[in-house]
Amino acid sequence: MEGQNYDLLIIGAGPAGLTASIYASRYKIKHAVLGSLPGGTITEAHKICNFPSEANINGWDLAQKIESNARQLGAEFMTSEAVAISGQYPNFAVELASGQVLLTKSILLATGTKRRHLGLDNEQQYLGKGLAYCATCDGPFFKDKLVGVLGGGNSAATAALYLADIARQVYWFYLGDRPEAAEPSWLEEIDKRANIKHYPNVKVNQLLGDNHLTGVELINSDHQTSQLNIDGLFIEIGSDPATGLLQQLNGQINDRGYAIVDAGQATTVAGVWAAGDATSNSNGLRQIITACSEGAIAADSIFRFLKKN
Amino acid sequence: MEGQNYDLLIIGAGPAGLTASIYASRYKIKHAVLGSLPGGTITEAHKICNFPSEANINGWDLAQKIESNARQLGAEFMTSEAVAISGQYPNFAVELASGQVLLTKSILLATGTKRRHLGLDNEQQYLGKGLAYCATCDGPFFKDKLVGVLGGGNSAATAALYLADIARQVYWFYLGDRPEAAEPSWLEEIDKRANIKHYPNVKVNQLLGDNHLTGVELINSDHQTSQLNIDGLFIEIGSDPATGLLQQLNGQINDRGYAIVDAGQATTVAGVWAAGDATSNSNGLRQIITACSEGAIAADSIFRFLKKN
Repeated sequence: MEGQNYDLLIIGAGPAGLTASIYASRYKIKHAVLGSLPGGTITEAHKICNFPSEANINGWDLAQKIESNARQLGAEFMTSEAVAISGQYPNFAVELASGQVLLTKSILLATGTKRRHLGLDNEQQYLGKGLAYCATCDGPFFKDKLVGVLGGGNSAATAALYLADIARQVYWFYLGDRPEAAEPSWLEEIDKRANIKHYPNVKVNQLLGDNHLTGVELINSDHQTSQLNIDGLFIEIGSDPATGLLQQLNGQINDRGYAIVDAGQATTVAGVWAAGDATSNSNGLRQIITACSEGAIAADSIFRFLKKN
Repeated sequence: MEGQNYDLLIIGAGPAGLTASIYASRYKIKHAVLGSLPGGTITEAHKICNFPSEANINGWDLAQKIESNARQLGAEFMTSEAVAISGQYPNFAVELASGQVLLTKSILLATGTKRRHLGLDNEQQYLGKGLAYCATCDGPFFKDKLVGVLGGGNSAATAALYLADIARQVYWFYLGDRPEAAEPSWLEEIDKRANIKHYPNVKVNQLLGDNHLTGVELINSDHQTSQLNIDGLFIEIGSDPATGLLQQLNGQINDRGYAIVDAGQATTVAGVWAAGDATSNSNGLRQIITACSEGAIAADSIFRFLKKN
């Protein structure tokens, strides 16, 4: 067989993949970490206030710390992305974007999720400059400000509630007459808040502002547009788990697309584990700390599996 | 009603309790953290190599970082220990060792584990006189001495390594041919130390000495006994979950004594959650990172519960 042989390939270099690598190195498992961006999507977060051992660190720096720790313990990194997996335990073949094929006994998928974006041309320009995808992470920066929340589900509802304690005024933008996808009890809570104003039947049509976001153009169901001044906009239209590779192996995903894993993070495919935001574990909380924990649990399971088999 | 009223009392100030507090503060839940020692048992760890964002930190320093973060976010700390809980949601009363009673709507038990003792009659007599449960705390008293370490897991392995830098000679006592529960990385380190001698397949049968410990009687798998002169013995034979408070509320524990919790860390008692080493979650891995994750998940569940109820 061609190519390099590993006991474990970790696909994804975010908190889950990197922590798994740290544990795998401590367990002396011969492995490599594949990922186009060490740190993964957390590198986008401009401030993280709830990683337990860090007060106010940005995502890039936190990623660097975890990555540096993983490298120091001996992890081999490849920045090429995995595009295809075939085979079965203990003979998997992982094909990289570069065309290279790696052979491995076992696989850990730590591929995370992709946040749904608005899809507006200038969206990336305002990221960290008034536009955010995570209220828990970035809410505190909008004390006494005017903020918008876009989305009609629970994550938008809880974001609006969370922000109502911080911001002066919260504008809640959603499709339909009511935010149908949000639980009635959340809506009841929201109804008690004087500073959450509903904007039903609207989409965000345009982002406004020179450098920092200063407002949005809304469009309603009658195709009428209006402008609203806001200091911040929270996009809470969900994210999608990246489970394409698992599906190539016919691994099971749940009805929302997340990788079904057991308590030890094993997927339904023998020799394949999953950890982090792409899985069904951690009660759906999907935080850096939960991803790290799942990575550690997965590496421990893999260590014990490889030892036995 | 007498006493201070809280929405949440977090009992235990280790990684789980502190991380839960960080999340609770960010969710604006009125809460306090109870614990005699902020940081909990991790403060005893002399070297931590697998907390993802830290390379080679000691337990005390890591605990300080997490605690300082929790304090900065507004947590109220009480160093008095909780000794009794009564009542039911939303009216729990928590009695402290000081006699003070606190009233709270909900409770998070983050009580961790307690180190296992040998169970020998005269064990307590030698405590602080040659017998110890914490290498980091008591190791420095054994400079150039002969010490034994009892146990076959990571904590025993790291204690042996730590003591090898201080003591003249370290005797490592464990069951089985190999210390199976210890990480290969630690075993590799141990193999490099000329002054760590393995004693496989033995138990400590008796503690010897008049006032201060002077030796141990060992018994092997063939029931043969032998005596060995040592100046100190470090007991590292694991720990048991501290679930006494949960049992006062008739909360369910599993056959090994761990608090049974659901995916959101809820115990079987309404209004009571548990997180960290005392629970049945995280696939039994029981690391700092898994405790932190459980604390975050619990705080999130509690937040959503309190908002609804």
